[in-house]
Amino acid sequence: MSGSVRNSAISWIAVDWGTTHLRAWAMDAAGEVLAEASSADGMGALTRDGFEPALVRLIDGWLSDGVRLPVIACGMVGSRQGWVEAPYRAVPCRAEAGAPVTVETRDSRLSVHVIPGVMQPEPPDVMRGEETQIAGFLAANEGWDGVVCLPGTHTKWAHLSAGEIVSFQTFMTGDLFAAIAGHTVLRHSVTTDSWDTEAFEEAVADAISRPEKLAARLFGLRAAGLLHGRDGASATAALSGYLIGAELAAARPYWLGQQVAVIGASKVAAHYAAALANQGVSANILSAQEAVLRGLAAHLDQVKATT
Amino acid sequence: MSGSVRNSAISWIAVDWGTTHLRAWAMDAAGEVLAEASSADGMGALTRDGFEPALVRLIDGWLSDGVRLPVIACGMVGSRQGWVEAPYRAVPCRAEAGAPVTVETRDSRLSVHVIPGVMQPEPPDVMRGEETQIAGFLAANEGWDGVVCLPGTHTKWAHLSAGEIVSFQTFMTGDLFAAIAGHTVLRHSVTTDSWDTEAFEEAVADAISRPEKLAARLFGLRAAGLLHGRDGASATAALSGYLIGAELAAARPYWLGQQVAVIGASKVAAHYAAALANQGVSANILSAQEAVLRGLAAHLDQVKATT
Repeated sequence: MSGSVRNSAISWIAVDWGTTHLRAWAMDAAGEVLAEASSADGMGALTRDGFEPALVRLIDGWLSDGVRLPVIACGMVGSRQGWVEAPYRAVPCRAEAGAPVTVETRDSRLSVHVIPGVMQPEPPDVMRGEETQIAGFLAANEGWDGVVCLPGTHTKWAHLSAGEIVSFQTFMTGDLFAAIAGHTVLRHSVTTDSWDTEAFEEAVADAISRPEKLAARLFGLRAAGLLHGRDGASATAALSGYLIGAELAAARPYWLGQQVAVIGASKVAAHYAAALANQGVSANILSAQEAVLRGLAAHLDQVKATT
Repeated sequence: MSGSVRNSAISWIAVDWGTTHLRAWAMDAAGEVLAEASSADGMGALTRDGFEPALVRLIDGWLSDGVRLPVIACGMVGSRQGWVEAPYRAVPCRAEAGAPVTVETRDSRLSVHVIPGVMQPEPPDVMRGEETQIAGFLAANEGWDGVVCLPGTHTKWAHLSAGEIVSFQTFMTGDLFAAIAGHTVLRHSVTTDSWDTEAFEEAVADAISRPEKLAARLFGLRAAGLLHGRDGASATAALSGYLIGAELAAARPYWLGQQVAVIGASKVAAHYAAALANQGVSANILSAQEAVLRGLAAHLDQVKATT
């Protein structure tokens, strides 16, 4: 659903189009958000012909006849199964330098441009969307060298130096959390969104020292529920803690002795920052939305040059 | 579906009733299998009133009017959500000594007895069904001291000594495999039952030395598929290897320097035995079916005493 907005003030449209969600923002010339809208028309739910109608459905209220608005999109919309394939760039590369791929549209009120993802040949790894958040982070923190962590379904850790993404590694921590909470015996235990900070911190510490115990610790949550009435908030926080703890153990070469920033939605970013703080690392936090909007805006000049 | 069988030869009926499956065997007085049958009427699909009809539906052809056949059942059928709750016994305890709980039936051709599970207060752990397989293993290997591994949805490792289950630990390795293969991004990569022995062994060795890398290694399978065309058999075997490798690392106090036996279905038991062999452990294998039938038979005298 589009918010109510004076369309003549809209200068361009920012789009973050992932596997499960489509998010759009109406932006003014100064980079301020005039309106926002989102739907469940993620890449995974669409065939190639479905992308344009899904986008128009969401932002129709922002469009005006006779005006062709630039739309800049990042995320899985640029994958092989997306609207248009925007081939990966290889690291090392500047975060904001990917040339957007232009998509032909039937609707003459749109000029759509899709930002390419970034890949690493060895060890093999890929990102789509996070490169734009990183570009936005660097736009907000010029000259920043260090490590960024982007928690999510597929959490990314990336080394940034001299404005470039040097290397990165993906952990499917969020994907594992959802699959375990929803599709194993723990679905009977992880039944709540509420949180138990102590259980989280204990689980992080345990996983950092004994990461191989994951499959046993998880069944232990179930058994403790059956035998000792362990509650759902504690089991939920412990599941998250075991997974994030193992990730921190594996990502130690990234964060140890480095300047670290976490870019993400407020809740999960706070959990990562808390886990890092227990390891003596003080991480800055930037909201994922601010990062993606700044990153999309960083491509505005490239797009205007092509239209 | 029941096999064709001369009913007068049937002495008792063996039942393994888990969360997802119901399996039954018509047994003669010498402990030989005369017929077998199975259905998807697992405990998870039934309300309390549904157990007797589900059992009769499966074995009706084996029953004769005027004859009350003993049925001995193990597994989740004895859980709180089962047909009758057969309360856990606590370790240390003899594997075969659990007194079966008798269930009232409407059908006078049945006399149903459910074997209790086994629990461990600390660290909290539970089993239902595996205690019967262990009893069967000990019946076939009298005086055996050592460690048994029972791979499955919830793999058990148990220390056996002097005929008793001394302690045990559960790893939800099979549950994790199914959730990851079916409900994460790896569902696009793990699309086959075929196998790649080299990929399995590499993944086992990697996970034993770097178990914390799990979430990164798993995404690496996806990325290697996208970038380098890594195939499904290799990804399937590697997923299994990462999970079993981490389990072996965590279960080292169980198997190191011990006599080890694996009780399980042939394919998964062979994978565990291969992974153990790479660690220098030569494990005996007993089929899960033989173990459960011998274990159920070990309760026959107790049941006959109550009927």
